[in-house]
Amino acid sequence: MFSQRCYDLGTARSVIRELFEYGKLRANEVGADKVFDFSIGNPSVPPPPAVEETLERLLTTVDPLTLHGYTSAQGDLAVREQLAASLSRRFGHPYEASRLYLTVGAAAALCCVFHALTLPGDEYIVFAPYFPEYKVFMEGAGAAVNILPPRYPDFQIDFAALDGAVNERTKAVLINSPNNPSGAVYTPETLTALGELLTQKSRKYGHPIYLISDEPYRELTYGAATPWVPDFYSNTIVCYSYSKSLSLPGERIGYVLVPPEAADADAVYAAVAGAGRTLGYVNAPSLFQRVAAQCDGLCADTSVYAKNRELLTDELGKLGYDTSHPPQGTFYYFLPTLEPDDVTFCEKAKALDLLLVPGSGFGAPGYARLSFCVPTARIEGAIPVFAALVKQYGRS
Amino acid sequence: MFSQRCYDLGTARSVIRELFEYGKLRANEVGADKVFDFSIGNPSVPPPPAVEETLERLLTTVDPLTLHGYTSAQGDLAVREQLAASLSRRFGHPYEASRLYLTVGAAAALCCVFHALTLPGDEYIVFAPYFPEYKVFMEGAGAAVNILPPRYPDFQIDFAALDGAVNERTKAVLINSPNNPSGAVYTPETLTALGELLTQKSRKYGHPIYLISDEPYRELTYGAATPWVPDFYSNTIVCYSYSKSLSLPGERIGYVLVPPEAADADAVYAAVAGAGRTLGYVNAPSLFQRVAAQCDGLCADTSVYAKNRELLTDELGKLGYDTSHPPQGTFYYFLPTLEPDDVTFCEKAKALDLLLVPGSGFGAPGYARLSFCVPTARIEGAIPVFAALVKQYGRS
Repeated sequence: MFSQRCYDLGTARSVIRELFEYGKLRANEVGADKVFDFSIGNPSVPPPPAVEETLERLLTTVDPLTLHGYTSAQGDLAVREQLAASLSRRFGHPYEASRLYLTVGAAAALCCVFHALTLPGDEYIVFAPYFPEYKVFMEGAGAAVNILPPRYPDFQIDFAALDGAVNERTKAVLINSPNNPSGAVYTPETLTALGELLTQKSRKYGHPIYLISDEPYRELTYGAATPWVPDFYSNTIVCYSYSKSLSLPGERIGYVLVPPEAADADAVYAAVAGAGRTLGYVNAPSLFQRVAAQCDGLCADTSVYAKNRELLTDELGKLGYDTSHPPQGTFYYFLPTLEPDDVTFCEKAKALDLLLVPGSGFGAPGYARLSFCVPTARIEGAIPVFAALVKQYGRS
Repeated sequence: MFSQRCYDLGTARSVIRELFEYGKLRANEVGADKVFDFSIGNPSVPPPPAVEETLERLLTTVDPLTLHGYTSAQGDLAVREQLAASLSRRFGHPYEASRLYLTVGAAAALCCVFHALTLPGDEYIVFAPYFPEYKVFMEGAGAAVNILPPRYPDFQIDFAALDGAVNERTKAVLINSPNNPSGAVYTPETLTALGELLTQKSRKYGHPIYLISDEPYRELTYGAATPWVPDFYSNTIVCYSYSKSLSLPGERIGYVLVPPEAADADAVYAAVAGAGRTLGYVNAPSLFQRVAAQCDGLCADTSVYAKNRELLTDELGKLGYDTSHPPQGTFYYFLPTLEPDDVTFCEKAKALDLLLVPGSGFGAPGYARLSFCVPTARIEGAIPVFAALVKQYGRS
């Protein structure tokens, strides 16, 4: 007498959440300092000071009826103008407010785009390793999902696989760079080749194949900046969230950008707004619309993430783990497991109170995801446990 | 190459929005004091002081990583415990945190419930006059919608019509009391009869027919308090928003309550959570979850609304308008138009810069909706215009 799909989604806890809840229980049993939980991707550094300052300024200077009132469905006009100006400055395109649709985070942005684009029979292509909720969102919009296997070990794109996968039903390809969980950042070369392939396939099938770029980790890189995807392919739709850059994941604020050069840009934008309407997204939270616009381009102090990443590379490398491909972005370390069966490996780690997420859940067996958005002390404390785990495999 | 339904929803502006935008343009032309805009239901009184105080306290005393961090998908546990305690106190039932699912406003609450409950072929019954987005949300969930005509002039329920409408495909009946746009508050007698009819029909068709109670105006009444709907029918699901009571419509915070006595309560709750997941609602905005829980049961100072309502009743009554059924709740006056064609009537009013929404848009022709959540001066200024309108009909 109710939707079985919704019931299943509501009762099946994700592997990550399951592990995270286990970690909390276990910490109560043996003490928090004895449990090395690397399961969840919750930012561990506070928002940049500008966020706190902006919040305080808004709350003390703006009329509360305006500040907390309904905005236009696509977002407050002044907010979108400010944000468009910021993006234009940062990425060198003259974006206008009318191209931006403010959303309740990246998940909402993606859902609006999938619902806007999907016609019966449509397919989306996703590259493993991938964030498992993509599939939930896409299927919720009525689309089929084709997950392509990972390109080991650099997690760039396997173009032969992509070439074979695109077909007349392909509505869009989704990318997530910097990538959760692999930490890979697509290179300009990858994006150039991707743009060329999609241009050619769009021509072949006589309709635009969109590129949906999910970029919540855009600012979290440890070397070169993340390339601006619309520079490489005109039919790109950008989905963004401030969850990671501004350490505001609970506030749910992000946007969809439909650049003017995308095919049917005006209609797609309208359909995104219409999708938001039918999904119940009246407007993105009004206070944080203003915070986001005023803090766009800023980033929390991620030096702790950089330090943790370095520590893991050095120390795990010394222990015999393969750290030859440290993450180029995000706050996830995607570590080859010491046996092919990553689930068994992670079970063995769990028995030592070391909580890692098996790569299989992301479509990339043979790896484990380690969220290093944690206090550095937790990593230092975990090194002997990693050493004990290596010993179990007779490698030290 | 995109969803026509989403495109249509994104381009068709609602009658209310259209009128509101016209009012802003017109105010620029002739001056804001010459335009009497009663189109939109935006609260005009600030949040209660406790909201501002709570915001300040939270921002200065709670660790920002916690305050702005992800919460559980169903809402922070402490928030739900506090809210459950508040509802238990207010309504005399021992509700537990596990029955509450925090949402991104009432629209999200409704969408989650519709998606959770809907199976192919299901129908919802709605009573006119009704908030037009209900239809959008229900159809978005794949359900059919049966709008029953209004019961004039008190806008309680036409039980003969309901009796004829319920059938084996009826999944739920939606009510909205206090009602937008009629201002009617269902009496205990109405709710008793509704509960009895639904109990009998549930038995007849061998499955529970749910009662979905959308209550964003619960605290906005001008006489008796709004009855607590689950007292009258066990299979009730409550959808609530703090938009109106706390004057926070832009912040998008509300909840779904699935009382334990509802049929399949645990499964329905899980399906609501699963619906939230597939629609991209990761969690309700975290800062305002806490504000809502700490301010539940409070209400903005609505004495201005009460004063405006009295002024309209007195002055429009003197002019010859039928004010014999003033609203019992909400901040809408639903006024019989001076000719049967409410659209023409509202056009005539618009020509005098008096902006009223035709009742036809809510499924109740012969009426016009007047949002009186405005400064009292606007009503005072509009009285001569209402008088001029009466004159056009040769009635004064």
